[in-house]
Amino acid sequence: MSDTTDTAVGVLLPWSGLDARHGPWPPNVRVHVWDGLTPEDELPAGVLESTALWVMPYAVPGAERLLPRLPAVRAVQSLSAGVEKLLPVMPEGARLYNGRGLHDASTAEHALGLMLAAQRDLPVWVADQQAGRWAPHFTRSLADSRVAVVGYGSIGQALEKRLLACEAEVVRVARRARPEEDVHAVTALPQLLPDVDIAVLVLPETPATAGLFGKAQLAALPDGALVVNVGRGRTLDTGALLEEVRGGRLRAALDVTDPEPLPGDHALRRQPGVLITPHVAGGSATFRPRAERLVVEQVRRYAAGEPLLNSFPRP
Amino acid sequence: MSDTTDTAVGVLLPWSGLDARHGPWPPNVRVHVWDGLTPEDELPAGVLESTALWVMPYAVPGAERLLPRLPAVRAVQSLSAGVEKLLPVMPEGARLYNGRGLHDASTAEHALGLMLAAQRDLPVWVADQQAGRWAPHFTRSLADSRVAVVGYGSIGQALEKRLLACEAEVVRVARRARPEEDVHAVTALPQLLPDVDIAVLVLPETPATAGLFGKAQLAALPDGALVVNVGRGRTLDTGALLEEVRGGRLRAALDVTDPEPLPGDHALRRQPGVLITPHVAGGSATFRPRAERLVVEQVRRYAAGEPLLNSFPRP
Ligand SMILES: NC(=O)c1ccc[n+]([C@@H]2O[C@H](COP(=O)([O-])OP(=O)(O)OC[C@H]3O[C@@H](n4cnc5c(N)ncnc54)[C@H](OP(=O)(O)O)[C@@H]3O)[C@@H](O)[C@H]2O)c1
Ligand SMILES: NC(=O)c1ccc[n+]([C@@H]2O[C@H](COP(=O)([O-])OP(=O)(O)OC[C@H]3O[C@@H](n4cnc5c(N)ncnc54)[C@H](OP(=O)(O)O)[C@@H]3O)[C@@H](O)[C@H]2O)c1
Repeated sequence: MSDTTDTAVGVLLPWSGLDARHGPWPPNVRVHVWDGLTPEDELPAGVLESTALWVMPYAVPGAERLLPRLPAVRAVQSLSAGVEKLLPVMPEGARLYNGRGLHDASTAEHALGLMLAAQRDLPVWVADQQAGRWAPHFTRSLADSRVAVVGYGSIGQALEKRLLACEAEVVRVARRARPEEDVHAVTALPQLLPDVDIAVLVLPETPATAGLFGKAQLAALPDGALVVNVGRGRTLDTGALLEEVRGGRLRAALDVTDPEPLPGDHALRRQPGVLITPHVAGGSATFRPRAERLVVEQVRRYAAGEPLLNSFPRP
Repeated sequence: MSDTTDTAVGVLLPWSGLDARHGPWPPNVRVHVWDGLTPEDELPAGVLESTALWVMPYAVPGAERLLPRLPAVRAVQSLSAGVEKLLPVMPEGARLYNGRGLHDASTAEHALGLMLAAQRDLPVWVADQQAGRWAPHFTRSLADSRVAVVGYGSIGQALEKRLLACEAEVVRVARRARPEEDVHAVTALPQLLPDVDIAVLVLPETPATAGLFGKAQLAALPDGALVVNVGRGRTLDTGALLEEVRGGRLRAALDVTDPEPLPGDHALRRQPGVLITPHVAGGSATFRPRAERLVVEQVRRYAAGEPLLNSFPRP
C-alpha cells in the first residue's frame, strides 16, 4: 500500500491477528499493537505520534497514561462499560467510545446461572457429591417464577431474554416508569416485591443507587424469596441482607458484594442459602470474540469516515 | 346436579382442590380422590366400580394394582413420561395417556443449570466461598458455545429454546436424519463431535441407547469439552468417561449415572471437572401446576366426549 502510506490512518490496537480472523484491514489504515504491558517506548518511532484511533488494552490499570502522548488521536475506544473516569483525561479534539454491550451476554448468563443454582439447590448437590451422599429431594424451579429485574438496562434486557426462554415471568424496573414498555419506576418496588419470587439487581454504582435495596425492600419480599446481585455491591445493604438470611427467611446469590473483596471471615459466607461468586459475571470467554467484532467494525467505520458506535456519553 | 347423577362420568384423581384453583368441574362428572397411599378399601362404596377416567398418583410404586379393580375404566392417565411398563397391565377397552411434556421445563432448566455451572466454574466458587477465598479468574462461557443435543425429543427441544436464548449454537441429533428440520442422525456423531464444545445426552433407556455414548464418541470430542447427561445413566459408558475425566481431558455434569445411585466411594465423585446431581432434573416445582393443567384439560375433554391428549403409544 505504499501509495496510501502518506494519508494512512494510524490505528493502535491491544491485540494482533484480528485480520487473520476477520479479513484484511481497509487499505488506508496502518495498524500497530500495544498490549498495555510492554513499555510503550519500545513501540516503533512515530507510532504514538500518528495514532488517530486508539483501542485501549482491556482492564490494564494505568493504560490511560498514553493519552497525553497521542497528539493525533481523534477516537479512543475503551472495552469497558463504565468509563466515567476517562472523561476528565481525554485529549482535546478526541472522542470517547465505550464497551457497551460487550459484557451483556457474559453477565446475563452468570446471573441466570446463579438463579438456577439457587433454585435447583446446586450447592447442596456439590456438597453431597463430595460427602458421598445420594439423597434427592424436590426443589424450587426457575420456570413459573416471577422475577423482578431491578435495572432494566442493557444487561437487564439480555437477562430477560434468557428468563423468558426459561418460562419465568419478568417484572421490569428502572429509574422512571415507561408504561408503553411495561417498565415500572423504582419507587413502585414496595408494591411489586410482595409478589415476586426473585429480585435481581443489575444497577450501576451512582449516588442514587447506593443502598437502594435496603431493609424496607428486603422486608417487602415474601418468605423464601431469592435476592441476586450482579450489578454493584453497594446497591444492596449488606447488613440488612445478613439479618434476613441469618434466620433463613430470604436466600441470596451475589456476584458483587460490599465490602468487596468479601473478607474471608465475613458472616455472609457461612449462611445457608447464600451463594457467592467473586465478581466474575463479566469475565468469561464471550468477551473476546465480541470485543474483536466491535474493534474490527470501528476500524472499518473510522477508515470509511463513518460515525463510530458506542459514543460516550450517549449523544 | 341430581339430574345428571345417573349418567355422571366417574373420575378418580390423586389430588383434591383442583376445582378451587382451576374453576368448577363440568356438571356431568363426579370426582373422587385417591392419593395412592390411603388404603383403597377406604374409598366410598361404588367409586372403584364407576371410575371411567383414572389419573394415577405420581411416582407411587405399585399404584397400578388398582387397574384390575376398575371394571368401567376407559382412560388411564399417568403423569410419568416413561409408561412402557403399564401397557401389559392395561384393562381391556381402556386407553393409556402419559405425562409427555410435564417434565420438559424442569429437566431442560436443570440441564441448563448444569451447563452454566460447569462453564462458569460454580463448584470452584462454592469451595472458595467456604474456604474464605476471593480469587476471580476468567472462565468459559455458554454463549458462543456449540452444543450437540443428542436426543432431540421433547426435552431436547425445550433445552434448545433455552440454549438459543443464551446465544449458544445447537446441533440437533436424533435416531435418523431429518434434513428438513436440520436434525442429524446419531450415526453422524463421529463427524459432528470434533466441532462441539458441549455434548448433552437426553436419551431414553432402550436396547439401542445402552452405552450409545462410549469410548469412540468421547474420544471424538475436543480437549476440554463438557459431557452432560440428563437422560438415563446407562446411555453413557461410565468406565470410558472416567478415563477421559481422570486425566482432565474432558469435563462432565451428570444428573443420571450408571450405577445409580452412584456409590459414596465411586471415583467419579472425586474427579475435578465433574459435577453430579442425584437424578433431580425432573423433580422441581414446575411439575405440579403443569400436571394440574393437564388433568383439568383431560377431564374437560373426557366429559365433552373429545379425544384426550398424550395417547400412548403415540397414534
Ligand atoms: N458483575 C459484573 O461482572 C458486571 C459486569 C458488567 C456490568 N456490571 C454492572 O452492571 C451495571 C449495569 O450495566 P448495564 O450495561 O445494564 O447498564 P445500563 O444499560 O446503563 O442499565 C442500567 C439500568 O439501571 C437503571 N438505574 C440506574 N440508576 C437507577 C436508580 N437510581 N434507580 C433505579 N434504576 C436505576 C437504569 O434505569 P433507566 O433505564 O431508567 O436509565 C437502567 O435500567 C453496570 O453499571 C456495572 O456496574 C457488573
Ligand atoms: N433426569 C431426569 O430427571 C429426567 C426427567 C425426565 C426425563 N428423563 C429422561 O429423558 C428421556 C428423554 O425424554 P423426552 O421426553 O425428551 O423423550 P422423547 O420426546 O421421546 O425424545 C427422545 C429423543 O431421543 C432420541 N432417541 C431415542 N432412541 C435413540 C437412539 N437409539 N439413538 C439416537 N437417538 C435416540 C429420539 O430420537 P427420534 O427423534 O429420532 O425419535 C428423540 O429425539 C426420557 O426417556 C427419560 O428417560 C430424565
